[in-house]
Amino acid sequence: MAQQILGEFIGTLVLILLGDGVVAADVLKKTKSENSGWVLITFGWGLAVTIGVFVSGYLSPAHLNPAVTLGMAMAGDLPWGSVLPYFLAQMAGAIVGATLVWIHYKPHFDETEDQMTKLAVFSTAPAIRDTMSNLIGEIIGTFVLVFGILAFGRSSFTDGLNPIVVGLLIVSIGMSLGGTTGYAINPARDLGPRIAHQILPISGKGDSDWGYAWIPVVGPLLGGAIAALLFGLIP
Amino acid sequence: MAQQILGEFIGTLVLILLGDGVVAADVLKKTKSENSGWVLITFGWGLAVTIGVFVSGYLSPAHLNPAVTLGMAMAGDLPWGSVLPYFLAQMAGAIVGATLVWIHYKPHFDETEDQMTKLAVFSTAPAIRDTMSNLIGEIIGTFVLVFGILAFGRSSFTDGLNPIVVGLLIVSIGMSLGGTTGYAINPARDLGPRIAHQILPISGKGDSDWGYAWIPVVGPLLGGAIAALLFGLIP
Amino acid sequence: MAQQILGEFIGTLVLILLGDGVVAADVLKKTKSENSGWVLITFGWGLAVTIGVFVSGYLSPAHLNPAVTLGMAMAGDLPWGSVLPYFLAQMAGAIVGATLVWIHYKPHFDETEDQMTKLAVFSTAPAIRDTMSNLIGEIIGTFVLVFGILAFGRSSFTDGLNPIVVGLLIVSIGMSLGGTTGYAINPARDLGPRIAHQILPISGKGDSDWGYAWIPVVGPLLGGAIAALLFGLIP
Amino acid sequence: MAQQILGEFIGTLVLILLGDGVVAADVLKKTKSENSGWVLITFGWGLAVTIGVFVSGYLSPAHLNPAVTLGMAMAGDLPWGSVLPYFLAQMAGAIVGATLVWIHYKPHFDETEDQMTKLAVFSTAPAIRDTMSNLIGEIIGTFVLVFGILAFGRSSFTDGLNPIVVGLLIVSIGMSLGGTTGYAINPARDLGPRIAHQILPISGKGDSDWGYAWIPVVGPLLGGAIAALLFGLIP
Repeated sequence: MAQQILGEFIGTLVLILLGDGVVAADVLKKTKSENSGWVLITFGWGLAVTIGVFVSGYLSPAHLNPAVTLGMAMAGDLPWGSVLPYFLAQMAGAIVGATLVWIHYKPHFDETEDQMTKLAVFSTAPAIRDTMSNLIGEIIGTFVLVFGILAFGRSSFTDGLNPIVVGLLIVSIGMSLGGTTGYAINPARDLGPRIAHQILPISGKGDSDWGYAWIPVVGPLLGGAIAALLFGLIP
Repeated sequence: MAQQILGEFIGTLVLILLGDGVVAADVLKKTKSENSGWVLITFGWGLAVTIGVFVSGYLSPAHLNPAVTLGMAMAGDLPWGSVLPYFLAQMAGAIVGATLVWIHYKPHFDETEDQMTKLAVFSTAPAIRDTMSNLIGEIIGTFVLVFGILAFGRSSFTDGLNPIVVGLLIVSIGMSLGGTTGYAINPARDLGPRIAHQILPISGKGDSDWGYAWIPVVGPLLGGAIAALLFGLIP
Repeated sequence: MAQQILGEFIGTLVLILLGDGVVAADVLKKTKSENSGWVLITFGWGLAVTIGVFVSGYLSPAHLNPAVTLGMAMAGDLPWGSVLPYFLAQMAGAIVGATLVWIHYKPHFDETEDQMTKLAVFSTAPAIRDTMSNLIGEIIGTFVLVFGILAFGRSSFTDGLNPIVVGLLIVSIGMSLGGTTGYAINPARDLGPRIAHQILPISGKGDSDWGYAWIPVVGPLLGGAIAALLFGLIP
Repeated sequence: MAQQILGEFIGTLVLILLGDGVVAADVLKKTKSENSGWVLITFGWGLAVTIGVFVSGYLSPAHLNPAVTLGMAMAGDLPWGSVLPYFLAQMAGAIVGATLVWIHYKPHFDETEDQMTKLAVFSTAPAIRDTMSNLIGEIIGTFVLVFGILAFGRSSFTDGLNPIVVGLLIVSIGMSLGGTTGYAINPARDLGPRIAHQILPISGKGDSDWGYAWIPVVGPLLGGAIAALLFGLIP
């Protein structure tokens, strides 16, 4: 169990270091990668998941995402007693990962005026603020994620390729469904870095947009749960 | 058989959710992914096929495309009695998938004025309207698709990688041959969403361009049939 | 032998249909993919090779390139008697493939004024015309290609993945070394379509730039030969 | 041992030919690939590593990077006596590879006025010059690289895919962490080409920025060492 906790911590740390990192690469001022656009963001996040799963997959099942952990528990692939420890490990990893992104891009945070841009490196914000639509969007995105992962379990590709296939799934969700809410599709990915944004001494930062924070937590958990329920109905 | 029908339905639903989704991501107003261009479109559609095949491949052969189903029946890989049920399942999946795209991007449809752009999320329209050339274009694109799939059947890559290889084939067709008609290369991909566009209460929508609708149905079926015939001639 | 000839013909046909196709997609007027840039070109050509090898690899060794055929003969992997028949099949496939690109993009050729752009769909032209540098560039690019293919033969990836790995090699050469001469790195890829450009009744076409035509033939053959020689020296 | 030395030499040569090549493709004037941006740079460098490992992996462990060699020695995967010979072979390969890039792009160097741009083809320079931040950035990037490679050794993907997986890791680091210092993450990748820049008769070149040269040497070595130490602590 300690090994699994460590795996979820390390994997989520790397996931957020590379995932929030690619957002920083795109939106902060004066980087060499500034304004590279949605193709960079979506491949970057997909690879962040691939690498996060690779570096932790020999220690734990590498969920790196409470919505996936919930779905796996509902599908009977994880004991319910592991759910809360996994959640905590994922949250801790996400907070540390986001902190490393801030350290890595420190001079570029200093060069960036806009407060929403600084927050965007950490957490998601919707393109159009609409509570019901944003919630539905996170549900649909996470539904595809968890339904896909459950289906992969029935596929015949060699186990070792799982991190790459899951990464492709993330790229696909990002390209096709991500442009609305910024596809948190993972409560730890959004809440952990938002906590980091709240507590870190980021120069000239604004508020952490806590009014929106429940949507990328509740939406993904609902989407993962619905996916597990529906997948279970397939004979 | 019920399981196969379910597979074709689920797979085509996911294919269109992610495929029409990436068009919405690119063309609708105020998304984070707006105007990301043809690289996003082509990788997005390729991954839509890859994920669609992964989520249905343990239930059915995952054609997700009447032109592929026709080609496989002609090649002797599918009983003729399965063809019509497959068609219907693929069409139903496409209609539901396109409806989910509308739900997912609802605020962005509201922000988009242009009626042709709204239709473009659902169905294809040619860059230059020319009946004979558009028909030939859909025939050539689908010929490459079905000929490729038949050739993969003779290749030695491990079965589990099939969804990725088919996705690469779709990316290739999109990049190299898609810029003319928008590469329907799949009657269900075009007709299903066009029906959804006709019946859904999309704010400020225009007509569904039924005058063009036969080309992305007839062209792909002809292209698939020709591919199966020619492939059968190879010793 | 007839089967191998057929394989080289079909594979090169598909290679040029998809390869010249992605150039047409990028440079011809009024396509949906116009001006998508070098990322589209390089992924498009890489996938063209991948698909070309997949559709012919069960019939022949799928060289699809006289420089590769020469290198393989020098390395002892192909009987010398097969070299000329392979060349002819590759050239014939390239001419037919280029003709199909013209048919596919006919309305877009009509919309394109610039004669050099029309020729660019078929054959390569250097960014800066400099005989010695262009020749060296084609030698270096093809050296990497043939040296890479020979090295893959010593690698342990499963045989079925060979088309994907070779495609990645083509993407890499295109991204890193292609921006100078347009990386023919294949005599059939350049000369076959140039012949098609000469003989097809393309509206408003200019001359076929025969003064440059020897470089993308001689350079690749030299590069492939040098690669085979040096690779043979490695213990 | 001679074979391993040859492998590290050839592999690093190809790595730098393709890696510095993609920078040249992007930044030098009048190439067909000019200004293709960070997506080209990151995929190009990732593929450079993939191909570099493929062409040398049957001769040596294909580190192609002193920071990886140091990490592997610390992890007990390489005898300490091999470390210095590996370093020298990697440096020699990098110098020759960078020289070939200069030869390949000669006319484009002549067309490029800016001295910093010419140097950028060879070696890295930070987006914002800040000694501590730049050093930390190289440490973090190389940490992820070496930690990832060590974790891959515990994964179950087939050995033959290792070059592709390592290439994906490089793409990920480039996309997520590269936009600050230009991600040398490899002392030979930076120092070798800088020496080439110093000694080659490049027309209109400026100085080789030796004041910065220690950071992309010391940072990667530290990052690799820390990764090996921490990885060793995981049970």
